Amino acid sequence: MTRVGIIGASGYAAADLMRLLLAHPAARITALADLPEKCGALAKLFPQFAGRIDLAVVPADAKAMAAACDVVFLALPHTASMTYAGPLLDAGLKVIDFSADYRLKTPGLYEKAYGHKPDEANLANAVYGLPELYRDAIKKARLIANPGCYPTAAILALAPLVREGLAAPSDIIVDSKSGVSGAGRTPKLLTHFPECNESMQAYAIGSHRHQPEIVEQLGLVARVSVDVLFVPHLAPMDRGIESTCYARLLQGISAADIAELYRKAYYGEPFVVVRDEPPATKHVVGTNYVHLCPTVVGGRAVVSSVIDNLTKGAAGQALQNMNLLFGHDETAGLE
Amino acid sequence: MTRVGIIGASGYAAADLMRLLLAHPAARITALADLPEKCGALAKLFPQFAGRIDLAVVPADAKAMAAACDVVFLALPHTASMTYAGPLLDAGLKVIDFSADYRLKTPGLYEKAYGHKPDEANLANAVYGLPELYRDAIKKARLIANPGCYPTAAILALAPLVREGLAAPSDIIVDSKSGVSGAGRTPKLLTHFPECNESMQAYAIGSHRHQPEIVEQLGLVARVSVDVLFVPHLAPMDRGIESTCYARLLQGISAADIAELYRKAYYGEPFVVVRDEPPATKHVVGTNYVHLCPTVVGGRAVVSSVIDNLTKGAAGQALQNMNLLFGHDETAGLE
Amino acid sequence: MTRVGIIGASGYAAADLMRLLLAHPAARITALADLPEKCGALAKLFPQFAGRIDLAVVPADAKAMAAACDVVFLALPHTASMTYAGPLLDAGLKVIDFSADYRLKTPGLYEKAYGHKPDEANLANAVYGLPELYRDAIKKARLIANPGCYPTAAILALAPLVREGLAAPSDIIVDSKSGVSGAGRTPKLLTHFPECNESMQAYAIGSHRHQPEIVEQLGLVARVSVDVLFVPHLAPMDRGIESTCYARLLQGISAADIAELYRKAYYGEPFVVVRDEPPATKHVVGTNYVHLCPTVVGGRAVVSSVIDNLTKGAAGQALQNMNLLFGHDETAGLE
Amino acid sequence: MTRVGIIGASGYAAADLMRLLLAHPAARITALADLPEKCGALAKLFPQFAGRIDLAVVPADAKAMAAACDVVFLALPHTASMTYAGPLLDAGLKVIDFSADYRLKTPGLYEKAYGHKPDEANLANAVYGLPELYRDAIKKARLIANPGCYPTAAILALAPLVREGLAAPSDIIVDSKSGVSGAGRTPKLLTHFPECNESMQAYAIGSHRHQPEIVEQLGLVARVSVDVLFVPHLAPMDRGIESTCYARLLQGISAADIAELYRKAYYGEPFVVVRDEPPATKHVVGTNYVHLCPTVVGGRAVVSSVIDNLTKGAAGQALQNMNLLFGHDETAGLE
Repeated sequence: MTRVGIIGASGYAAADLMRLLLAHPAARITALADLPEKCGALAKLFPQFAGRIDLAVVPADAKAMAAACDVVFLALPHTASMTYAGPLLDAGLKVIDFSADYRLKTPGLYEKAYGHKPDEANLANAVYGLPELYRDAIKKARLIANPGCYPTAAILALAPLVREGLAAPSDIIVDSKSGVSGAGRTPKLLTHFPECNESMQAYAIGSHRHQPEIVEQLGLVARVSVDVLFVPHLAPMDRGIESTCYARLLQGISAADIAELYRKAYYGEPFVVVRDEPPATKHVVGTNYVHLCPTVVGGRAVVSSVIDNLTKGAAGQALQNMNLLFGHDETAGLE
Repeated sequence: MTRVGIIGASGYAAADLMRLLLAHPAARITALADLPEKCGALAKLFPQFAGRIDLAVVPADAKAMAAACDVVFLALPHTASMTYAGPLLDAGLKVIDFSADYRLKTPGLYEKAYGHKPDEANLANAVYGLPELYRDAIKKARLIANPGCYPTAAILALAPLVREGLAAPSDIIVDSKSGVSGAGRTPKLLTHFPECNESMQAYAIGSHRHQPEIVEQLGLVARVSVDVLFVPHLAPMDRGIESTCYARLLQGISAADIAELYRKAYYGEPFVVVRDEPPATKHVVGTNYVHLCPTVVGGRAVVSSVIDNLTKGAAGQALQNMNLLFGHDETAGLE
Repeated sequence: MTRVGIIGASGYAAADLMRLLLAHPAARITALADLPEKCGALAKLFPQFAGRIDLAVVPADAKAMAAACDVVFLALPHTASMTYAGPLLDAGLKVIDFSADYRLKTPGLYEKAYGHKPDEANLANAVYGLPELYRDAIKKARLIANPGCYPTAAILALAPLVREGLAAPSDIIVDSKSGVSGAGRTPKLLTHFPECNESMQAYAIGSHRHQPEIVEQLGLVARVSVDVLFVPHLAPMDRGIESTCYARLLQGISAADIAELYRKAYYGEPFVVVRDEPPATKHVVGTNYVHLCPTVVGGRAVVSSVIDNLTKGAAGQALQNMNLLFGHDETAGLE
Repeated sequence: MTRVGIIGASGYAAADLMRLLLAHPAARITALADLPEKCGALAKLFPQFAGRIDLAVVPADAKAMAAACDVVFLALPHTASMTYAGPLLDAGLKVIDFSADYRLKTPGLYEKAYGHKPDEANLANAVYGLPELYRDAIKKARLIANPGCYPTAAILALAPLVREGLAAPSDIIVDSKSGVSGAGRTPKLLTHFPECNESMQAYAIGSHRHQPEIVEQLGLVARVSVDVLFVPHLAPMDRGIESTCYARLLQGISAADIAELYRKAYYGEPFVVVRDEPPATKHVVGTNYVHLCPTVVGGRAVVSSVIDNLTKGAAGQALQNMNLLFGHDETAGLE
């Protein structure tokens, strides 16, 4: 039985992880922690767990966590994660980090995007936790950089294409629409119900911090540097990301052939479904699945990709990584 | 041309008032004010007015308002309104107050509900601004206590019944469902989109401050004291209130007769529609209308009442009152 | 491994059942059927099951079902269920029916509400599948009448009160708000998105078919006949029911005592949580839980009750019943 | 007083037109018609007009319309409009058509997209009703082809850029998100509330019928042929379109210069607002405004454009055209 701790237990990604862990046959939650001002009985913070998880969220303490857990999930904002990862790793635990702190390997990229020096020592050993790309490395890792929600949808949508050298590396556009839970649990005007309900809005056009993450990972897959224009939008729904990805093709390929390419690329993947019709986010909400629909229009590939931003985009993928780290069935707790 | 000022211009009720005033043939906005920290260009506070209203919201100052306006709407929280009403009235203006400060006439009731002494001097002259009950008094008033949103829906739903003595005065239940804009524009966890979206929740069961307002007004209509059990609910929509009102009948009456009673009671009213089918809030959103569907089940009358909480429940009714105060067509700016 | 069949596999309750069965440790879906015009690959009917359930929905045939299954869930409209229940029972299977066909025991009541003669023979042996009331009988049953969604929320909210004789039996009001999935999957104007989105509306005031079911069951609990005024409302959300229940108290009782009464009444129940604050439907969506908040206002008890209409209100409760029927852990597949 | 008739009065665009006409100072509705099966009292078809418009929708008859009206709006699907336009024009009326029947001038394009021969005779005299491009021609026209909703948002977003020759004509992508009212009022599974609520989905990727309309109009503005990749998405909201438009730039231009270009291009336009921040659809819902935010990322212009699909995307623009046709103030009834 894998003993699980969560630091940052008051946020939405943590709540989704707890939802999933309740049904996991070989793991149980043994410790919940957060910043002191966010602590209290879990059932007060999240009434959906009343009668189901009888734990308090206590102020985060690496030593206490180390004593109670085999693995700790850091559901924290960037720069906060790096204060806990080192001590937990030193204590012999495995760590799965939801923040961006261990995702960007290119020297200087993290500091440029997040305005803070990275934790170089541990960054060197971190593995980017996208099982479809790095399953073997994940199994042997001790520190997992769990991918961002937008990058998960975009990378899985584009990887087969750039791996084969079919896409012009500097002519890729990712137009994404995300549910509001992606903006976190702290109330602000933008996400106040009467402001964002019944409304669509672009934001951070060309300047979102997930852009360098997408660029770095697609570059690794392509083995050449790529450029991506990324435009996220806020959509009036709780959960889900739809990303429509546009890539100029370097050679003619039919819609049927591109679908075949994707089916082969993801053959055997437990959570990737390649479909003939554009998927709806509703088809994957609450699950760890990504649905992809690749097609060709004129000289461009158009791939629509949907995930649940909190599950495959955060907690579900993290659990998939935990399963790989501990030798559980990769899908345990995810069906 | 009636010159209009608004204090509290950064809130939703004020925004709805501005929306309506843009189409008013005989009034124009001449001054917008609010607390200092809520000031700035209107188009920054409410981008929907970009290119339409080129005014700044400035720190509230009664003297400046008095010089620029014929009437001032106070779109402020309770106790804030009473600091402005007096000076504006003294300067000869007419005042329409959206808060509860001048609604409760029964001695002690305001202080009990709101924890603050009322402004006795002006309270004595205030008229409760429900035109369907007090049209003549409104025309002659200088200070209007604009009704609360829940009371508007509930009082109009029950007035014909209690006026005729048909309802047992101590056996009235009002079960109301309100859109989230009713909770105001200040972000908080309860109204954070991922918390209240896709959810229904009762709140303030039997303890909401609109209950004494409903009780006082229905008592005046009934000419005996009444008791009301009021339970509001938060509904996942921007605007609209549906109130299902239950009243035990003191004598047998058919559904047809009760419908006839309501049609007679509201004959000629420009904004009240009596219908045979339960109305949807969507039928009145954006308008100053109330739709009522009275019926009888067993020994009880059941009346479903819908309004837009920001329009008939606040800004639209306020404008209706302004029209009465200044001799405009009562429906001006409201079609 | 319990082999499960579903007739009526193209509807929402069936889909929720499949979602739950995917995580059940001791049951698997072996047959899916529906009316001929509703058949096809499951992944076409419900894309959320693409890659997860590789079955076709075939025309319903009792004999084929009997050969492949140990239990059949009838996710069918009333009168359709009774054509399948008999043959399946005769073939030795257990049957859990989602329709109203086996819920009403009072002679004449079914025919009055549904305009059709009941299946008297099997009705006599059917057990009303509310485990909190009839757990022991359910364990021994072969035919379960799975409760309606509104009745589940209302009966659990009121049972402790009427069992103790605290509520005046003829002075009970249930005001319910349901998500749109409760209206089924057949498109119609009322549930067309731009009609019901952002809107609240009462319907079937005093005439909904779930009223006799609530009345009959509460009467059995109370051991006297009761009367209930039931008013359902359509709320703009996918799932969830909130029922605010009003009952006149026959004797004084404090809010604290009523809470204590409810905690005792549901002590040990795996899916009932008694809370001090009014619950939100969001706290239970996707789960088999009911959250109850009982309180007292004036001379009335007010109980707010929330469930997921598709889970505790249909598929989850059905699975709880299946677990009882087959000796599985009652919560299997429900965490 | 302009006498207005509407054929196709049972649909959403017609309802929005009626909403606007109620506040128009110089026009009134004199006749409402539709297909025989869609007729009846307007207040039954659209309860929001109960007590406000006391007219019946009657079976469409060109002769009767001609006698009662000065202008007729055809709120009909394509191919239906062309059966009414000719007779109404012959009778001396002016006609504003919401369908695609008179929008496409390029020979063969209408037939290719809509599978039906166009009405060549009247097509020759029709004017594309986008006032920002064709104001003078509209004033003199008798038959207006009111633009599609997606084309309105896309053309206004891209016209300044292609007019100046700044955009590579074959490298334009329009990624649009529309509220569900854009799909019409006929219930179907895709727009059944529990299917499309809380969900985002691409559809008709590269094959939507509005694509040739965008291409033709942008080509006219550019004076060279252009190519556009258009991908619409269904968003879970009633109204509003957000289009994010991507165009590769043929020469370097700063974000400030592109904003200046747009401000000059739309100087004096009553309904176009150029903004520095990405607009939300909520900022324009219910109004005839388009908000545009142009910027530059890498070598591409990115323009976010929002409209209300039923107002500027249909009924509001049609009313703006009517005002131009009849010499009313262009903004009459639109504030």
